[in-house]
Amino acid sequence: MTAAPHPKPNPQQLDAIRAVVGPKGIIEGDDKAPYLTEWRKRWHGATPLIVAPASTEDVAKIVKICAAEKIAITPQGGNTGLVGGQIPLGNEILLTLKRMRNIRAVEPLNNTMTVDAGITLAEAQERAHEAGRLFPLSIGSEGSCQIGGVISTNAGGVNVLRYGNTRDLVLGLEAVMPDGEIWNGLKRLRKDNTGYDLKQLLIGGEGTLGIITGAVLKLFPQPAEKVTICAGMSNADDAVRLLSLAQAATGGNVSSFELMYRLCIDLTLKHIPDTRDPLGDKHPVYVLAEFSSGVGVGLRNSVESMLAKALEQGIINDATIAENEAQADGLWRIRHAISEATNGEGLGARHDVSVGTSDIPAFINKANKTVAAIAPGVRFVTFGHIGDGNIHYNVLAEEGAAKDALNDKRATIEQAVYDIIGEFGGSISAEHGVGRHRREDIAARKSPVELNMMRAIKNALDPHGIMNPGKML
Amino acid sequence: MTAAPHPKPNPQQLDAIRAVVGPKGIIEGDDKAPYLTEWRKRWHGATPLIVAPASTEDVAKIVKICAAEKIAITPQGGNTGLVGGQIPLGNEILLTLKRMRNIRAVEPLNNTMTVDAGITLAEAQERAHEAGRLFPLSIGSEGSCQIGGVISTNAGGVNVLRYGNTRDLVLGLEAVMPDGEIWNGLKRLRKDNTGYDLKQLLIGGEGTLGIITGAVLKLFPQPAEKVTICAGMSNADDAVRLLSLAQAATGGNVSSFELMYRLCIDLTLKHIPDTRDPLGDKHPVYVLAEFSSGVGVGLRNSVESMLAKALEQGIINDATIAENEAQADGLWRIRHAISEATNGEGLGARHDVSVGTSDIPAFINKANKTVAAIAPGVRFVTFGHIGDGNIHYNVLAEEGAAKDALNDKRATIEQAVYDIIGEFGGSISAEHGVGRHRREDIAARKSPVELNMMRAIKNALDPHGIMNPGKML
Repeated sequence: MTAAPHPKPNPQQLDAIRAVVGPKGIIEGDDKAPYLTEWRKRWHGATPLIVAPASTEDVAKIVKICAAEKIAITPQGGNTGLVGGQIPLGNEILLTLKRMRNIRAVEPLNNTMTVDAGITLAEAQERAHEAGRLFPLSIGSEGSCQIGGVISTNAGGVNVLRYGNTRDLVLGLEAVMPDGEIWNGLKRLRKDNTGYDLKQLLIGGEGTLGIITGAVLKLFPQPAEKVTICAGMSNADDAVRLLSLAQAATGGNVSSFELMYRLCIDLTLKHIPDTRDPLGDKHPVYVLAEFSSGVGVGLRNSVESMLAKALEQGIINDATIAENEAQADGLWRIRHAISEATNGEGLGARHDVSVGTSDIPAFINKANKTVAAIAPGVRFVTFGHIGDGNIHYNVLAEEGAAKDALNDKRATIEQAVYDIIGEFGGSISAEHGVGRHRREDIAARKSPVELNMMRAIKNALDPHGIMNPGKML
Repeated sequence: MTAAPHPKPNPQQLDAIRAVVGPKGIIEGDDKAPYLTEWRKRWHGATPLIVAPASTEDVAKIVKICAAEKIAITPQGGNTGLVGGQIPLGNEILLTLKRMRNIRAVEPLNNTMTVDAGITLAEAQERAHEAGRLFPLSIGSEGSCQIGGVISTNAGGVNVLRYGNTRDLVLGLEAVMPDGEIWNGLKRLRKDNTGYDLKQLLIGGEGTLGIITGAVLKLFPQPAEKVTICAGMSNADDAVRLLSLAQAATGGNVSSFELMYRLCIDLTLKHIPDTRDPLGDKHPVYVLAEFSSGVGVGLRNSVESMLAKALEQGIINDATIAENEAQADGLWRIRHAISEATNGEGLGARHDVSVGTSDIPAFINKANKTVAAIAPGVRFVTFGHIGDGNIHYNVLAEEGAAKDALNDKRATIEQAVYDIIGEFGGSISAEHGVGRHRREDIAARKSPVELNMMRAIKNALDPHGIMNPGKML
């Protein structure tokens, strides 16, 4: 499916939209630039108009005008997406949710919070914390990404193993559908079997089926005890074994389980100040894991015995347990800085892929061999959320090479990695989504049956194709 | 939307379908009866043909014939549904998945299991257990209900608070779509953001969008420590407070949290052998709760201090902790026998509803007053999964009344209860689904926007309306 050829809106149409929001809701002139470039400067766009409605009703009025006039719309949250889904291609109006910032309700006894789409993830976390609860979603951009965008992209992050993806953390949605009708699906319910679960289409729908304006989020009890460890081992097989041991020993109290190959540590120590090698010796592979429990006692003992057993069985070579918050932060600092650390080493080929957790070692081995055959001497900066089967598989040119050394081989490497992902029944975009970036890859690699289902749903709910055209499908 | 008028298939068409499965796959004569009556004898149906294909490919061949000839199909699992969704109305062929019983893969290191749709829930639980893992879904009919039906109805049960509904326990699906194409969505992945999450439409879709033939199920570590308690208190408000206290004290290690009003206990003691009053004195309201933890120590202590605190704060009047498995079973026996116990008291008005957990006391109070005004003297057998906001709100005629005493008031009571549920933003079918039973209620009570979305999706994926017509919408 190609994007429907939406014409540039004419001045009268744009005036009608401006009249809905008034001067406060129009972003003009030089103020437009930050909305039209993605933060890494990778995706650039253009738009005839940026509107910032302040209410769901105003969003509906705008979409009604657009539906009647076949004007296309790109919704935008915090503009932190990595695949260009939030950047208009040219004729779409850009609708930012930034002025919709109400916390509509916080209900600790119901473990729910009802919010406007425009609050940041960090604000949602803070408001939950103030109410003595936990909103567990945590991603690098949490200070600026917005709840609406987080939901539209089904964001993942470091706590998925324990608490699930965004999809698992949303109980209800309010959205403006492509015909401009407001759908009130703001249910605060854990159980509701009265028809198709429509919110699931908008979650991860990348704004192609409607504009999310509000959401009911699931809250959790705050954990009473946290234990953070780092372990060094010989290979990824042992990392998978350690995960199994850790889950058995703590019965599912593993919150995060992150894999890092040694090169991740080396580059971080080289480029990022105030980082230090987590263990005395160097090891080929590291695991950074966090355990949390509500019981308040016993967790540290369980983790200690588990690590002793892992040492005894030869699964790990060494391990450290953070003695306090500062030590835990130091370990996490390495993990969080890997992306930044690789930026100093030139632009490689990056992949955000997933396979079954137990397939991770075989995938990495096969991908390394295949990529090395395409581009001898490359370096592999492999890390990720091993408990979710999600690997950030990044390839860098050899040390000292020019920054653009991999440019002409990038596409070949990517397609080869995706071929291997296909063999393992994996996903070529585990967390980051499709947007503009992976649109053609999806079209080429999904089965015709699945593509037809997706297109049938898109056509059924957005027959004029006005919602975020040119993205996802 | 009324069911499309599907004609009775002619003999040639039926022969073509028979030829796909051969004699082993045809259920005829007296053998047909058990498939055409629901187990409580509440829903009865008829069909020109019952087929039992043995493979996904055969299901696809049958659906292809039906799609070409516009023959309607009702898929059936273990025939344990409570709302008539699995019973054909007359001209539909009935397709039972009972011969599709392969366990395709059990992967403990990936915490997944891939199965055919026709295995029972109990078999899935057993196979997970043999692999040292837990498949946590647990419902009364687990010995005979099948995985395909469990997924098509998004079954709930007693462990939802900790592990989620069926929707949360399915990673991938295989289904035959209404055009007869096989959709292979058997992903074994925790993360996959490459388009609309299509499986979510089939989960809880009640067979109206396709026939589920296989699934990838999520497995969990087995818990190391379990604590079962029963507490007596004055009212439902205190039960909600106790839940909050319990979740805070054990940080989310509450697996089940069940509410029972005293009459539930009285009727169970009266009608069910080998049951005994759980506490020394009688209390207006009881909570039966189960806690489980993987840490292996500390849980019982946490639960004990929590109960001491609740006694001190006057939230509960008394409590008991099961000292062993037999005592825990005894407590659960009461909870599980409530439905059976009420059968001896005449047919009342039954409701499977949900509201926000914190709204439960207000809902019960308002419903009791309203129903008592309609039918003075009725008795309320109120129990349910309070942690999920899911109440089985059942109304019985006064003691000693004729079995059919409430017959002429049942519809009035139901609609009054549903009106109140609407005021609380609740669901009129929390677990049991829509099927035939609640189809008109859904049509009358859902918003036009939502009904239009549901119909648009149904028409997009099943344009001839051959999949389970007359159910849900």
